[in-house]
Amino acid sequence: METLYVIKIGGNIIDDEEKLSAFLQSYAAIAEKKILIHGGGKLATKLADQLNIPQQMVEGRRITDAETLKIVTMVYAGLINKSIVSQLQAHGSNAIGLSGADGNVILAHKRIVKDRDYGFAGDVDGVNASFLHSLLQQAISPVLAPITHNGAGQLLNTNADTIAQETAKAMSTYYNVHLVYSFEKAGVLLNAEDESSVIPVIDPARYAELKGKGLVFAGMIPKLDNAFAALTSGVQKVIIGKAENLSSLVSGDSGTTIIHE
Amino acid sequence: METLYVIKIGGNIIDDEEKLSAFLQSYAAIAEKKILIHGGGKLATKLADQLNIPQQMVEGRRITDAETLKIVTMVYAGLINKSIVSQLQAHGSNAIGLSGADGNVILAHKRIVKDRDYGFAGDVDGVNASFLHSLLQQAISPVLAPITHNGAGQLLNTNADTIAQETAKAMSTYYNVHLVYSFEKAGVLLNAEDESSVIPVIDPARYAELKGKGLVFAGMIPKLDNAFAALTSGVQKVIIGKAENLSSLVSGDSGTTIIHE
Repeated sequence: METLYVIKIGGNIIDDEEKLSAFLQSYAAIAEKKILIHGGGKLATKLADQLNIPQQMVEGRRITDAETLKIVTMVYAGLINKSIVSQLQAHGSNAIGLSGADGNVILAHKRIVKDRDYGFAGDVDGVNASFLHSLLQQAISPVLAPITHNGAGQLLNTNADTIAQETAKAMSTYYNVHLVYSFEKAGVLLNAEDESSVIPVIDPARYAELKGKGLVFAGMIPKLDNAFAALTSGVQKVIIGKAENLSSLVSGDSGTTIIHE
Repeated sequence: METLYVIKIGGNIIDDEEKLSAFLQSYAAIAEKKILIHGGGKLATKLADQLNIPQQMVEGRRITDAETLKIVTMVYAGLINKSIVSQLQAHGSNAIGLSGADGNVILAHKRIVKDRDYGFAGDVDGVNASFLHSLLQQAISPVLAPITHNGAGQLLNTNADTIAQETAKAMSTYYNVHLVYSFEKAGVLLNAEDESSVIPVIDPARYAELKGKGLVFAGMIPKLDNAFAALTSGVQKVIIGKAENLSSLVSGDSGTTIIHE
């Protein structure tokens, strides 16, 4: 099967105009088929502040009330998505920006967790892999914003890491998928203070060993658990590393590569 | 050739949640292939006011400075476009929302008019008819926001009437195109005060006669001039009328139909 890169770009890079621009240039240069998923960054919070819409965070997740949903739809699916797409077009990459509602690409449902209302937050039900495949076949590269819909007219705010993972899993039907999480860190580090302590390869045995020794940061555990879940659902490999090193990340020459065994 | 409806929905309907919802239900019910182009409405101005970004209008056109471009990109390509798409999906119409940058659908250049800087306002250079055609062939219905790009990374604010007209013209290569301008008026009126005085059909001879007698309102002249320009560029017919009567507009049973001869 042909290789497909599903690449998530983190919020910290989105917030930095220069870093984003350099990233997009490297991204456009990737010759293989590719899908980009972007997070939101701090712009939505800033806009909500300016409009005096109070933001409530619970365990790192934003509570998306109706007014906040409007803000994130404007910022994620509007400003950030279209800015990325127009820059990629300038680099000769025929990108298309999509929310989950567009072409019914990502169907989700409103998150329901006992005792807690997350508002208009969506958990993914399914990714329309055949439509994404048809775009890729036409040499068009999807850029997914972290906004989905429920099929009944409701837009939903959805975690970009989850969208990346679900997209990678769904596309495994058609492609040999490499899922890349690019962010501000060099990879999974053995020592949080030392950027040069990147663990190059993690397989399930090594993961168990690292966790057993308490050598994995709490914040990294859900990312790694999700990575292994993706691998058991058909994704070929997961790479975690620095957005600024995208070309070497994609080639497996930097960052942490997570493999099934 | 197969019929394609290219339908422009005006700003006043966009601003009215109930009217928009009824319109979208009628739109989704159109069995033929269709493309929707939406204007912006008053929401962008309201948001600019809330953020204390002064808005400068010259001859009815907004001067799009860098901050205003961000606002219209958020509101038009984000909030309005995705809200329309998610509602159409709920009515069973597989819509896809696009700015001009997405799939390189509409290329434009920054408007340059002697002695006047319109800021980031775009005049259309070309519409990517083959990509729109490929979406329609997959039973996907494009919804175009009035934001274009210049191919060099710059988004541009662009008049939705112009986008509708250029899209209709470009699609005439593939389809028998009916261009529908739906707004708050019943059509071209003989008497501005009388909504029942709709002129059912206007051809060039009738237009010359009406203009000669001073029976066409100043505001309607550019719309009609554009309509005749579209007809000479391959569009089959242009219909102008009330958004609330969309099904009878499309069937030619209400509004004003403008034909070449």
